[in-house]
Amino acid sequence: MSKKHTVILQPSGRRGQVDEGMSVRAAARELGVEIESICAENATCGKCMVLVEEGRFEKYNIDSKREHLSPIGTEERAYLMRRPKLLQSKGWEIGQVRLSCQCKVLGDVLINVPEESRGNKQIVRKTARERAIEIKPSIRKYYVSMVPPNIERPIADWERLAKGLETSMALVHGPEAKLPRWFDLRIDYQCLRSLSSTLRAANWNVTVSVWQDKEVIEVQPGYVEESYGAAVDIGSTTVALYLCNLRTGELLAAESEMNPQIVYGEDVMSRIQYAIEHPDGLEKLHKAVIATLNKLLKQAAKTAQIKTEEILEMVLVGNSTMHHLVLNLHPKDLGLAPFVPAIHSSVDIKARELGLQINPSGNIHVLPTIASFVGADTSAMILAEEPHKQDENWLLIDVGTNAELVLGNRKRLVCTSTPTGPALEGAHVEYGMRAAPGAIERVQIDENTLEPKYKVIGVDGWNTDHTEFKGQVKGICGSAIIDAVAELFRVGIVDSRGRFKKGLSSNRVREGENGWEYIIAWADETSIGRDIPMTQQDVRQIQLAKAALFTAARTLLKRTGLQSPDKIILAGGFGSYIDKEKAMLIGLIPDCELEKVYAIGNAAGDGARIALLNVEKRNEIDSVTRQVERFELPTDPEFQNQFMLATSFPHMSEPFEHIAHLIPNRVADPMAKNFMK
Amino acid sequence: MSKKHTVILQPSGRRGQVDEGMSVRAAARELGVEIESICAENATCGKCMVLVEEGRFEKYNIDSKREHLSPIGTEERAYLMRRPKLLQSKGWEIGQVRLSCQCKVLGDVLINVPEESRGNKQIVRKTARERAIEIKPSIRKYYVSMVPPNIERPIADWERLAKGLETSMALVHGPEAKLPRWFDLRIDYQCLRSLSSTLRAANWNVTVSVWQDKEVIEVQPGYVEESYGAAVDIGSTTVALYLCNLRTGELLAAESEMNPQIVYGEDVMSRIQYAIEHPDGLEKLHKAVIATLNKLLKQAAKTAQIKTEEILEMVLVGNSTMHHLVLNLHPKDLGLAPFVPAIHSSVDIKARELGLQINPSGNIHVLPTIASFVGADTSAMILAEEPHKQDENWLLIDVGTNAELVLGNRKRLVCTSTPTGPALEGAHVEYGMRAAPGAIERVQIDENTLEPKYKVIGVDGWNTDHTEFKGQVKGICGSAIIDAVAELFRVGIVDSRGRFKKGLSSNRVREGENGWEYIIAWADETSIGRDIPMTQQDVRQIQLAKAALFTAARTLLKRTGLQSPDKIILAGGFGSYIDKEKAMLIGLIPDCELEKVYAIGNAAGDGARIALLNVEKRNEIDSVTRQVERFELPTDPEFQNQFMLATSFPHMSEPFEHIAHLIPNRVADPMAKNFMK
Repeated sequence: MSKKHTVILQPSGRRGQVDEGMSVRAAARELGVEIESICAENATCGKCMVLVEEGRFEKYNIDSKREHLSPIGTEERAYLMRRPKLLQSKGWEIGQVRLSCQCKVLGDVLINVPEESRGNKQIVRKTARERAIEIKPSIRKYYVSMVPPNIERPIADWERLAKGLETSMALVHGPEAKLPRWFDLRIDYQCLRSLSSTLRAANWNVTVSVWQDKEVIEVQPGYVEESYGAAVDIGSTTVALYLCNLRTGELLAAESEMNPQIVYGEDVMSRIQYAIEHPDGLEKLHKAVIATLNKLLKQAAKTAQIKTEEILEMVLVGNSTMHHLVLNLHPKDLGLAPFVPAIHSSVDIKARELGLQINPSGNIHVLPTIASFVGADTSAMILAEEPHKQDENWLLIDVGTNAELVLGNRKRLVCTSTPTGPALEGAHVEYGMRAAPGAIERVQIDENTLEPKYKVIGVDGWNTDHTEFKGQVKGICGSAIIDAVAELFRVGIVDSRGRFKKGLSSNRVREGENGWEYIIAWADETSIGRDIPMTQQDVRQIQLAKAALFTAARTLLKRTGLQSPDKIILAGGFGSYIDKEKAMLIGLIPDCELEKVYAIGNAAGDGARIALLNVEKRNEIDSVTRQVERFELPTDPEFQNQFMLATSFPHMSEPFEHIAHLIPNRVADPMAKNFMK
Repeated sequence: MSKKHTVILQPSGRRGQVDEGMSVRAAARELGVEIESICAENATCGKCMVLVEEGRFEKYNIDSKREHLSPIGTEERAYLMRRPKLLQSKGWEIGQVRLSCQCKVLGDVLINVPEESRGNKQIVRKTARERAIEIKPSIRKYYVSMVPPNIERPIADWERLAKGLETSMALVHGPEAKLPRWFDLRIDYQCLRSLSSTLRAANWNVTVSVWQDKEVIEVQPGYVEESYGAAVDIGSTTVALYLCNLRTGELLAAESEMNPQIVYGEDVMSRIQYAIEHPDGLEKLHKAVIATLNKLLKQAAKTAQIKTEEILEMVLVGNSTMHHLVLNLHPKDLGLAPFVPAIHSSVDIKARELGLQINPSGNIHVLPTIASFVGADTSAMILAEEPHKQDENWLLIDVGTNAELVLGNRKRLVCTSTPTGPALEGAHVEYGMRAAPGAIERVQIDENTLEPKYKVIGVDGWNTDHTEFKGQVKGICGSAIIDAVAELFRVGIVDSRGRFKKGLSSNRVREGENGWEYIIAWADETSIGRDIPMTQQDVRQIQLAKAALFTAARTLLKRTGLQSPDKIILAGGFGSYIDKEKAMLIGLIPDCELEKVYAIGNAAGDGARIALLNVEKRNEIDSVTRQVERFELPTDPEFQNQFMLATSFPHMSEPFEHIAHLIPNRVADPMAKNFMK
């Protein structure tokens, strides 16, 4: 038996043991990560470049070093030597960057697969929806034509501009508008520095960009119509940037990148820990995300064929930890009881203070946070969905490693959050993976034969629709995990406590190395050559996750005296892909008419765009978030008790009338009567 | 005859030809600049250190190089090698820094005499007066005691502080006060960054410094009473800083330094020229003054035994060129027709944006400018003297290389400026010098014998009071120049046209190399071994200067329909030392009761302190300067004509009733009837 080494692939987080001597590219494929290659591994196309991350990675218990790969060969070196500009532009050096088709695994390594080398580009579910947003940007442009100064009227440049601007603003807004007088207008200092030369170069005809109708932040020669802004959702995993035309609201570019902070910790708690344990931890985390934002800005500007200096404002949202890290605020107290953010209020700050490479006089607006684990992304979700304007009681759930829940209507909004673990996103499940080509995304089990059929991302229809279905499957993603657990329960393979039943007449149910399991895909259906099971352990992970989410939802309902929400809104990529019925069947979400359960995609990104394009919405969400009531689950004395009860499928005390027909052998659970009423 | 070389001494600007081989220290003394020495020129005390400025100095038409001095000797090197820390702290290197007693002049050199090496420290006339200023600083301190966060109330740190602050502010100001609600308070971003750790370290009891009752700029643990601020008058020659306690108004330190920009040009026009001609000119000029401000801040903080971070605000004033250079605004258009500043309005800017080393969250307030040659120093003078609150019509004059004039009362204020040349400050006069020990400061001439008597700075009484009076005089300063010209006119040595009369029976009146002259001090009375004369050329310089000033004053009077001002206020060091009667006798200032002529010293510095200590005064001066009417003299069609007429002593059409008894042989001047009525 050959020697094995651990290979970890970032940013996907896929990892596993591979045989010594295997090429990195082959190893990656084995672990479910496709790396591009055009030249048939001849070291000539360079599409398969990867980066070797060096150091001791405690979390993974490995030491990654360059010499854990075979030495760089003549052809590989020759290829890299021919591309000094590329390497320089990326800041890569030979040795750190390798052709993954050429280098062989000789020890444990952590490999970073850059975006451009990824074979099956990850489906970034965070795409901006087209939605009607009233365009009232914080930045307005005004054309100002001035009489040049002369010896009789040598009034200063700024005052000359301000007086002209007062006139232009009054013309645009009409006589009724409350506008500042010229002497109450301000000009950003950096903008002032170039004012005199701009006015003269423009022959005293300029377009002035005014922020919130009070501060001049840009003066451009001649008549200019368009301004640009960027809305950014900084997720723990993905950073998504939307470049918009501030006049028309048009979406000009949507760019996303993996959050580079992932190398310092996969989830928010481990990043907080990193910042606490390393003196330069905060600085590293902060600089990493700023660098990514600058990269996205550059990409988006290129796509839209504008200059980054033409971007005059950015709106940022993210969970509280992302919020703190992007603002260079220490996240320590977010992670330690009593879990307190530095600030709830929205923040306006000059781009130059954060080193964000838009117009240096431009502002960065960061939406308010609500609690330590209910961040600016939740504020953005509220802004996008507007539960605070409804008569009905809506339950908004953003599911991720952590779930945030908001419940209520125009009279009252309550919120809470709960850790759900990574299982719902496909992590910590044995063959779990992110939603990418090769991932099983749907599972059905025949209740008679106990045989499954499934759908794979990148393959049309069900696997059973194909006569030859071999080697397509790489793993199982979040939506299929929900499906699988629900189906295992529905067809009676697991009981309402989540335990595998013994003695079933199916070779798919078997006792494996790590306990009982159900095989969804046989080894020959996969690209990794192994059976893909749903294990007892996987089912337990889902039980814990769904219990947390369900108990959180029930707590909010109880606190507001409601039996059930009028509508359930699932935000985030996860919500868009799960089968609502199945989610309800396992008790992931409370009982509700199925037609009243909506998946709305990246609501945080939508909310950020709304705040970017409509300045009044910023005041609205500031005001709403000040009134949202926060409930901290750990302070609820019943929480632990209720949590344990809620691990069953589905919770017995819940009516679940809308999925009752699906529930097998429904019997009264003796513990259920204790569940919160 | 030995070879001669040009030696120029900065910052005094003294220059002259000295014999090759003379030590720099001896040369400096010959040129009127004393350099310290304790060790009798043995290269052991190090008090005489000077810096060799290298380069081609077009203005002086010299090339200054290190090898234009004798090579560094063993003892000199040994001395300097023993003081690595001193040199390092100053940023000096051996070779650039020399012991002036050791190095000999071998070529043209520009030498910088650092403050610590100057023998007779210059009398900086800009000293802050004690005056009653109502203390209403822009920064107020509030003590806030908070309940620490707990799991039931985990509200964010900033909101916790803001709510406590709202309560504290209401307690201090009473229920009637209009104060922002807690959610309208802001916190400076840099201050926010350290907020969480400060609150916890302080156990939730802190003192909060709030700027303009709306922005938190500092949070200090426990109860803190005092805050500090600095008011600065940036003169072209001298930068004076006043460190004040913002609660009591107490002046804790007054520090001054030569303006280091002087090496780039002595007057504002030559600095503007420097900025225009050199791509990095503005940057150099800006950085030079910022470095000096930081040095003064450090010195003042040391004197007051506080930390520079405890300084929470700075108010800056200066002429328009100094204003632009300190704000890093290009001064180009100040120096080119139609002479337009970048901005009139007052500016508030974060200290960190300018690199000023006070508290980084602190603000810099720059007073408004009025015109290209009527700067923030004039605004400060108005604020200090308050002509805009008077019923009487006051004429304020700030005399320097340029004179600014403000005339009017509560109903109307008009202003103008005029170049007066450097003669009134003792420059461009053959033996003119600044007011420093050894300078003649008063002159009287006996009308019968035509013999003078004079006073010398640093010597008690008149020269004639001393039986032995030898070698004391180095030159003649501004006040004595006015005296001398007035006396020459009064006793009839020069006529009303300023021409020397021939054939007078005095050996002091003689025809010298450069025309007629009157000897004030014989060579043996001086330390430079030469007769000190007042020449025809010197008289002409004064005529031009006084004509400019007088015409400017008359223009303002005419424009406002006034015959004469009710009061004349002379600001600046110059005004404090001249003899009012003599000034009127030569027609430097318009006719006015002598008791109504006041010298008020450094009004600009006073005004800066007032704005620092009373925030309401900032709005007041903003409003006043917006209403001041500017007159540009060159646009006055009569100006050139009137100017020529005004060169006579005193102007004939002027009543000058208050000095009529002094005027000799007053006859009607045929041209005088044309002078403005």
